[in-house]
Amino acid sequence: MKKQLTIVKIGGGVIENPEALAHFCQHFAALKGPKILVHGGGKSATALANKLGVKTQMVAGRRITNKENLEITTMSYAGQANKTIVACLQSLGCNAMGLSGADGNSISAIKRPVTEIDYGFVGDITAVNYKLIELFLEAGICPVFCALTHDGKGQLLNTNADTIASAVAAAMTVGYSCRLLYCFEKEGVLSDFEKNILIPVLTETLMEEGVANGSIHAGMIPKLDNGFQALKAGVAEVIIGNENILIEKGHGTQLK
Amino acid sequence: MKKQLTIVKIGGGVIENPEALAHFCQHFAALKGPKILVHGGGKSATALANKLGVKTQMVAGRRITNKENLEITTMSYAGQANKTIVACLQSLGCNAMGLSGADGNSISAIKRPVTEIDYGFVGDITAVNYKLIELFLEAGICPVFCALTHDGKGQLLNTNADTIASAVAAAMTVGYSCRLLYCFEKEGVLSDFEKNILIPVLTETLMEEGVANGSIHAGMIPKLDNGFQALKAGVAEVIIGNENILIEKGHGTQLK
Repeated sequence: MKKQLTIVKIGGGVIENPEALAHFCQHFAALKGPKILVHGGGKSATALANKLGVKTQMVAGRRITNKENLEITTMSYAGQANKTIVACLQSLGCNAMGLSGADGNSISAIKRPVTEIDYGFVGDITAVNYKLIELFLEAGICPVFCALTHDGKGQLLNTNADTIASAVAAAMTVGYSCRLLYCFEKEGVLSDFEKNILIPVLTETLMEEGVANGSIHAGMIPKLDNGFQALKAGVAEVIIGNENILIEKGHGTQLK
Repeated sequence: MKKQLTIVKIGGGVIENPEALAHFCQHFAALKGPKILVHGGGKSATALANKLGVKTQMVAGRRITNKENLEITTMSYAGQANKTIVACLQSLGCNAMGLSGADGNSISAIKRPVTEIDYGFVGDITAVNYKLIELFLEAGICPVFCALTHDGKGQLLNTNADTIASAVAAAMTVGYSCRLLYCFEKEGVLSDFEKNILIPVLTETLMEEGVANGSIHAGMIPKLDNGFQALKAGVAEVIIGNENILIEKGHGTQLK
């Protein structure tokens, strides 16, 4: 039987609030068995860009990453966010190791080809370094990925954290039975935002219905696409919800 | 016989110039056998602080690190500088892994006690994680340390890169025969700046003479202190000089 591995992704909202982050880290550190954390940090990068007077250009909800934006992203994600999380987890007895995709060549990517939109220094993942991650997990080390990859030719690339979580979980199915938990502010995927009605189990058919009737929209769509992709790649369980999904079963939205 | 391990420290001057950095990385990547890189990045942190309107307070040539400065240092050292170097080394076939002291609990420190001066979030090293570094080296991975440590209680701390290089080299003598190379802009320690006269071999006695007559001063003094400390801890060779010390013997100033 394969060992169980938990991959957790947290969003920017948790990272930017020191109390929320400390709270999250406690729950994450308490998770038993090998685990991996993937974090975003979009809002703090935008805040830093604003302070530095660098414009953040968004097209269809996606950040265009020029050279200046990439520097800001690198400082914010791989610097401030990643090291703050790692230091916090270390204080809780979790032997965390911060990583960008360049570190140990852990995640390789190619710069997204220019079509109608030039996303700039944005990377589409081509490979996850299973051997390296396994080396860490076997040594009791918990990898903490920020949303950066590299092209192997010296170029760092901005890569969506939801996609990194999905790709890492998929890659680790070779040797592990993987659970992928997308942790954010809401209870899970909601069928009605006003009434706050949670969808406990979501299939791709139900998702398509939700997208069609508008109850599933914006950033939730790529997140769900990443989740379903992980399932298809052999990830045993994919759950989307708030911190409670780390604590006990029966919370959030499970993808099936 | 112990395996040879090379520890190289590069200063901020090399990091901030893309061409100089690419040039340095080529020489570093070409070094045979297990190796470790330690980098500073003081000037880029100061530049970022200026852009953000944060004051950099210096007392007796040393940076006072308040909360804002620590954030800037973390973004600059662990983010921009560290990941740029790692991505560059990866492109040259050197399997680099960027680390702050928090990552894998690689370097622990305590916050420097307040005496006449309160240095703020500055750390004095208490332990280097030999086992972790050995794990990397045995796996063919090259650790790349930035100038940050942690106290194990969730606090990141700014720590002098020369001191980190010395402490790491000293710690690794347990299993390796260590060479410590301090790489900066000058040819080595000079006895006469105007005539550019290099001191090929420097003893502690000679150093004291140089300090007394003023030829050795400012930042060179703590660098030399770190170098002599490494020698006393069993490091086989300590050399200070420009990039040529990476390429062949006979360059720079050797401490004896």
